[in-house]
Amino acid sequence: VPVHTGTLRFSTEANGDIIDLTEGVMQVVRTSEAGDGAVNVFAVGSTAAVTTMEYERGGVSDLRAKLDELVPKHGDYEHNRLNHDTNSHAHMKAAIVGPSETIPLVGGRLMTGTWQQVVLIDFDDRPRERSVHVQIVA
Amino acid sequence: VPVHTGTLRFSTEANGDIIDLTEGVMQVVRTSEAGDGAVNVFAVGSTAAVTTMEYERGGVSDLRAKLDELVPKHGDYEHNRLNHDTNSHAHMKAAIVGPSETIPLVGGRLMTGTWQQVVLIDFDDRPRERSVHVQIVA
Amino acid sequence: VPVHTGTLRFSTEANGDIIDLTEGVMQVVRTSEAGDGAVNVFAVGSTAAVTTMEYERGGVSDLRAKLDELVPKHGDYEHNRLNHDTNSHAHMKAAIVGPSETIPLVGGRLMTGTWQQVVLIDFDDRPRERSVHVQIVA
Repeated sequence: VPVHTGTLRFSTEANGDIIDLTEGVMQVVRTSEAGDGAVNVFAVGSTAAVTTMEYERGGVSDLRAKLDELVPKHGDYEHNRLNHDTNSHAHMKAAIVGPSETIPLVGGRLMTGTWQQVVLIDFDDRPRERSVHVQIVA
Repeated sequence: VPVHTGTLRFSTEANGDIIDLTEGVMQVVRTSEAGDGAVNVFAVGSTAAVTTMEYERGGVSDLRAKLDELVPKHGDYEHNRLNHDTNSHAHMKAAIVGPSETIPLVGGRLMTGTWQQVVLIDFDDRPRERSVHVQIVA
Repeated sequence: VPVHTGTLRFSTEANGDIIDLTEGVMQVVRTSEAGDGAVNVFAVGSTAAVTTMEYERGGVSDLRAKLDELVPKHGDYEHNRLNHDTNSHAHMKAAIVGPSETIPLVGGRLMTGTWQQVVLIDFDDRPRERSVHVQIVA
């Protein structure tokens, strides 16, 4: 088990859709049979991000609304103008939040808090098929 | 030494309290006796984050004030309403900054810059006991 | 090849200059001869950051403009006052975006998306010589 990689796949609604990855990450961890190691969770694509949060309805709603306020969908955006595109806001949010987090694994348990889930945020403006890679280095 | 994990514990004042983790991280590194490897620093909980910064009084004050301005304590927040809670702003800040950073270790030295410290930011709105895991994969 | 570290060096114009690191990261990967493993990319210094994005002219321009709007160069900043300095905005941006990302490597290939490049953003307000460490743990 020095290195084990699994891929989680999701259909998302995008527009800031937040998906709880925690159980999927644990499935890859169990398949790896790793005890202690680093678990890297990585979102593929430039309009999605990975972070951790308490995954409950209120917090999900607040985080989406805040990011929409800080980086509005409509604006004077060069990406949209040059590429005849509509998702510049999604690119900016994804770059700021970032695509990866690494979580320690000890005795086969993720060292996250009780109310701390690993999440994917899909910022794109149309439904997407998303891949998230989970790699354990043990 | 393939994998070594240590835990740092702190009492924080929260409200954006920023704590320099660098010496604590180095203590775990020295205990591991690792030479070259990846050092993952991970904040437990959904209202705290890990990043790097020049740890000096002015920068600490500016970063707290800027995050308070971008994500104010008081707002029309679903998390607070649904859970009869007061710390929605803390959850949002923590998710945006993120819980983990990974720092290369070479010859037993963290490859950070001279004025670049590893910090914990506790965004919660009441004093907390915090755990930060430091895991070296070498 | 359990651990291999390389360093990329750049002269940047700073002021939000964004540099595509992807080919440099792959050069370090090829030198390591690693197949599967974790690739950590780490920016040295407290005024630069690492993230991923679609590296095209419009998106680069939008991200710089958005971060300048959220964290303006001119403001009532303690860091500048206490240290007779001018780059407090650069410190704040770097801490929010963060210095590191970790990317899975499988069969010698970075598991990034087709339009997802690894980038360095130099937020400082004067040209800099920058180092970015690329460490593969395989």
